[in-house]
Amino acid sequence: MKFSFKNDYSEGCHPNILQALLQSNLDQQAGYGEDEYSLQAKELIKEKIKNPNSDIYFVSGGTQANLIVISSILRPYQCAISASTGHILNNETGAIEATGHKILNIETEDGKLRPSDITPVLESHQNVPHQVMPKLVYISNSTELGTIYNAQELEDLSAFCKKNGLYLFMDGARLGHGLTSEISDLTLEKVAELTDIFYLGGTKNGALIGEAIVINNQELKQDFGFNIKQKGALLAKGRLLGIQFLELMKNDLYFDLAKHANRQAMKIKNAMQEKGVQFLSDTYTNQIFPILSNDLIQVLSEKFEFYVWKKIDENNSAIRLITSWNTGDEPVNGFIEIINSELS
Amino acid sequence: MKFSFKNDYSEGCHPNILQALLQSNLDQQAGYGEDEYSLQAKELIKEKIKNPNSDIYFVSGGTQANLIVISSILRPYQCAISASTGHILNNETGAIEATGHKILNIETEDGKLRPSDITPVLESHQNVPHQVMPKLVYISNSTELGTIYNAQELEDLSAFCKKNGLYLFMDGARLGHGLTSEISDLTLEKVAELTDIFYLGGTKNGALIGEAIVINNQELKQDFGFNIKQKGALLAKGRLLGIQFLELMKNDLYFDLAKHANRQAMKIKNAMQEKGVQFLSDTYTNQIFPILSNDLIQVLSEKFEFYVWKKIDENNSAIRLITSWNTGDEPVNGFIEIINSELS
Amino acid sequence: MKFSFKNDYSEGCHPNILQALLQSNLDQQAGYGEDEYSLQAKELIKEKIKNPNSDIYFVSGGTQANLIVISSILRPYQCAISASTGHILNNETGAIEATGHKILNIETEDGKLRPSDITPVLESHQNVPHQVMPKLVYISNSTELGTIYNAQELEDLSAFCKKNGLYLFMDGARLGHGLTSEISDLTLEKVAELTDIFYLGGTKNGALIGEAIVINNQELKQDFGFNIKQKGALLAKGRLLGIQFLELMKNDLYFDLAKHANRQAMKIKNAMQEKGVQFLSDTYTNQIFPILSNDLIQVLSEKFEFYVWKKIDENNSAIRLITSWNTGDEPVNGFIEIINSELS
Amino acid sequence: MKFSFKNDYSEGCHPNILQALLQSNLDQQAGYGEDEYSLQAKELIKEKIKNPNSDIYFVSGGTQANLIVISSILRPYQCAISASTGHILNNETGAIEATGHKILNIETEDGKLRPSDITPVLESHQNVPHQVMPKLVYISNSTELGTIYNAQELEDLSAFCKKNGLYLFMDGARLGHGLTSEISDLTLEKVAELTDIFYLGGTKNGALIGEAIVINNQELKQDFGFNIKQKGALLAKGRLLGIQFLELMKNDLYFDLAKHANRQAMKIKNAMQEKGVQFLSDTYTNQIFPILSNDLIQVLSEKFEFYVWKKIDENNSAIRLITSWNTGDEPVNGFIEIINSELS
Repeated sequence: MKFSFKNDYSEGCHPNILQALLQSNLDQQAGYGEDEYSLQAKELIKEKIKNPNSDIYFVSGGTQANLIVISSILRPYQCAISASTGHILNNETGAIEATGHKILNIETEDGKLRPSDITPVLESHQNVPHQVMPKLVYISNSTELGTIYNAQELEDLSAFCKKNGLYLFMDGARLGHGLTSEISDLTLEKVAELTDIFYLGGTKNGALIGEAIVINNQELKQDFGFNIKQKGALLAKGRLLGIQFLELMKNDLYFDLAKHANRQAMKIKNAMQEKGVQFLSDTYTNQIFPILSNDLIQVLSEKFEFYVWKKIDENNSAIRLITSWNTGDEPVNGFIEIINSELS
Repeated sequence: MKFSFKNDYSEGCHPNILQALLQSNLDQQAGYGEDEYSLQAKELIKEKIKNPNSDIYFVSGGTQANLIVISSILRPYQCAISASTGHILNNETGAIEATGHKILNIETEDGKLRPSDITPVLESHQNVPHQVMPKLVYISNSTELGTIYNAQELEDLSAFCKKNGLYLFMDGARLGHGLTSEISDLTLEKVAELTDIFYLGGTKNGALIGEAIVINNQELKQDFGFNIKQKGALLAKGRLLGIQFLELMKNDLYFDLAKHANRQAMKIKNAMQEKGVQFLSDTYTNQIFPILSNDLIQVLSEKFEFYVWKKIDENNSAIRLITSWNTGDEPVNGFIEIINSELS
Repeated sequence: MKFSFKNDYSEGCHPNILQALLQSNLDQQAGYGEDEYSLQAKELIKEKIKNPNSDIYFVSGGTQANLIVISSILRPYQCAISASTGHILNNETGAIEATGHKILNIETEDGKLRPSDITPVLESHQNVPHQVMPKLVYISNSTELGTIYNAQELEDLSAFCKKNGLYLFMDGARLGHGLTSEISDLTLEKVAELTDIFYLGGTKNGALIGEAIVINNQELKQDFGFNIKQKGALLAKGRLLGIQFLELMKNDLYFDLAKHANRQAMKIKNAMQEKGVQFLSDTYTNQIFPILSNDLIQVLSEKFEFYVWKKIDENNSAIRLITSWNTGDEPVNGFIEIINSELS
Repeated sequence: MKFSFKNDYSEGCHPNILQALLQSNLDQQAGYGEDEYSLQAKELIKEKIKNPNSDIYFVSGGTQANLIVISSILRPYQCAISASTGHILNNETGAIEATGHKILNIETEDGKLRPSDITPVLESHQNVPHQVMPKLVYISNSTELGTIYNAQELEDLSAFCKKNGLYLFMDGARLGHGLTSEISDLTLEKVAELTDIFYLGGTKNGALIGEAIVINNQELKQDFGFNIKQKGALLAKGRLLGIQFLELMKNDLYFDLAKHANRQAMKIKNAMQEKGVQFLSDTYTNQIFPILSNDLIQVLSEKFEFYVWKKIDENNSAIRLITSWNTGDEPVNGFIEIINSELS
């Protein structure tokens, strides 16, 4: 079996989670997220974000979180704004539009949105009532290109949104990786302060399933739970989500796992940079996009699995490598060895 | 802690499942249901239903299964038909309507639909194009009242649906309990033969999460997977669902668990019947609805949790008791003891 | 050609409207409802309802008005409540559900809703978040059975809705007929005061097309126009709607036309009552539902068109007769003659 | 009053239509499009397109036609493809998305789609089931930029769509103008042959309201009428639409009116071209987009109304001029006079 760098959800979950599932297994608990584990996990998250007034809901996955959040916030004639790389735009089978809402697309280089990107969209949507009304800005951190927002960027975007009556929603499927990046100066507390709503991704960071939606804006809290149920996202055994987040939040396991994933990716990145390799995107998280010769890609693919991301020219392509909470040193070193021997 | 007879999803999952999760945990597997476990589990189900041409999809829960199935089948102007006790009608926060489809409601005594119930609905929906077009019949087995369809009833209903151009969809959240009821002459194979689509419920029969949607009608198979993804139901770690159904299907564990749950409920029912207790609904599955004096209910509620289901008169009410794959003899005997001593 | 009593939209429009269309035809006017005629018509309606703060929008028909109003008001998990005879429930091809919202059905004798009908629905929808949240009460006046609300009934219902956080929406497809009924003590001004939103129907009262939606509750006004456009209801030549309502509102033509229709129906009703005919519903508007022998129905149907509404027994059926703004004395007298000669 | 070149729906309707409304006004007719006029108008259209098997439906406006056609054709996970100038994309308040469907946007210079534009979109939507499935190509003729498809272009596009399993839908809000353009070699018959579905626009070519949807592909015909009713587009007095299309189709009035509008626009265009004026888009229909100095625009706007369409540089802008079936020689000559005197 080849080792896979295709994504960060190839393995099961962190052993602590399985251990906790075992220990709690035969407890009788209330259903639908009213179990003790879910309640404790929510309390722990509120402590970490330092906002006792936030509301927390657990759902199974990212597309589910995105469609519930966006459809619960927008009125029928309102729409979301997303970078062209945004997961909601092109990787969710039209899940947002299926709830009735358009997504306005902004082309960006690095997967990030800035006020200057959004201003022209607002200006070109003033023909009331013939156009949709932009009302929600969707961002990802880390982004689908592995890049991250720093604190100043998020502050600027947040202030811009407030000024323009826009809600700011952060897709945190890889929020752990974003926040623990070696170049990040953003904290979870700050994210909760600067966004109206965001989620902490578990699936891509050591859970079996699970994303924790955090609602910071009081306006958006009312009756939110109805949307969870209506979209088929309310698990009868909500304990499965609660137990996982409880384990991930304890002793900051969540951040340790993300840090590990980032570190493994950076090892490969650094080894490549020493050999002069260029990258499609300048990342400091668990996703890297090196540009390699097709010959070298061929050699690497004999031992490893990964996605060829983009054709650069006749002889070269960018590949995407993703490391996870469980990526050991062996595959990383094995990969680096080939790089070193082939590019020597 | 009081023992709870409130529902069949109070505990975690059958130990075999946790064991399998532990053993497979660090395998790298393809995402989105393409893992080996899911593929094997699907093959096993096809064997059990004796239909190699059926398509199988795993999703997390019942509401999710219902909304995906119904919205994938119906054209915008078509609607579903359901008994008034149907889970989709009153217990899913309008999940079906949220996908754009009306549900026509049929009042029934026992939670079951018969051709004679449906005929008048078809007759009163002939004013084209001013009315919705009935196109899908939704039934549950066992029903929300604990009753079941026998083979002849399902054959009649299936023939009626075919004759009238209606799809027949069986909600099998408690299909295990229905099929293993002591009075059932229906088999899983027969269910697959007589329905266009149905699902095998895992959540209420020993899994952490999971329902297995089985599509038997070839017309309904095309592109079904897109609907799963669009509704946010496609798990990145689809292995979680595959592993569970693999364990449940092996050696018929699924049916053994349901049989156990039914047996425990029947013990209580029989003990009550010996004391002359009447029931709201004549059931042979894991749900029973005894009518008791409010005084006795008070005594029972000191040691047990359950729902008071319906007020019968000033002094008496029906309660609902549900047993599960994990309901031991101790609470059952304890409950019976109180009955025997109070009703002696 | 037989004269038709099938409905009140068999003819074109009142001649004043055609005259106004002719006179204004070659004026250049702003599009999308910003024309002078629409603006004047809105002012005139505000005067009649004595509420300068109401917002007025014109749309083409009743189903369109109903779906726009309801979908603009409700959040995704909220639903409407309707009498079982409500037009939205069974005569609009699931238009409301197609916008994502369930309608809760209340069986009533006379097509009217009272607080005592609604209370049990509210009580049985308390299982948060597993059930839809009732949020809007839909009523028609006159109803689909020709009955009307008197002032006290509407006051009681309005107070009940306010107390329970429900919006009250009146479908006024036949509001003219309701308000000008000989037994009505309700006024247009009162309707505007007691409902959150309602509409004045034009199509069934002398216009070619057109319903005037009147929003009285300030909460419901924001951005309403977007919904009109999104649902395809914003006419480029909005003047067509404006001109019609301007003519109908001038000198109370709207009410005169309805009064005429009612009067013609009452003539037939009185003639029948003198002969001892019974009625399915006790109406004082332009719809009557006499119960006649099938033989008599056969005789009448040789000269007139009408709907056979309901089988009463082997020998008798109820028919529905509708008169319009343009129903002359000749068909009415002709109809009465047959009654008198056959029932003498 | 300034004369307005802002659009082609500033006036009422062609006098023949009003005359026909007057003459038919007091006839009793069946409702909901079953009247004699609608039936005759449909026959006449079938003759003109030389396809007796096509189905025809009349609706009130373009957005309504677009949303009904697209939502009736697509399955929930399928999407439409449109040029970036497409009316559905940016001028209909998200009407298509509100029915649950994404629109994929293709940037084009001239508002037209060619196979080479669509191929890359198909290629980049192969990640089943994570992306929407492109299934319908939406084009306008004439386009929103006033350009047209010639016969060869439409044949190529039609063949491409057939080959790729895509439906071809033509928005014909200005189809009359497109087909009667002096450079068009396309016929109505050919349009019916090469598209799966299209509509003939009445609102912008002399009707008060009305678009005639023509379904040529047999697969798309089934149950179409339900969608019309469900979206609130079925007029009780369908005669209003039937009478108008009957008049427009008689003696090819429809084409004469469009030809007139085109001719008036071409007069202005030719006068400008003689003075060396450049145009944003090379059009031969009733829309022209001359680039003028801001000073000249200022002078023109003292006597005429029109939209300033696009800023070209500090001193120059493109304006949009639209002529209609009713644009007389006086305003056209008056406009040309100013051009001639200012640009002499």
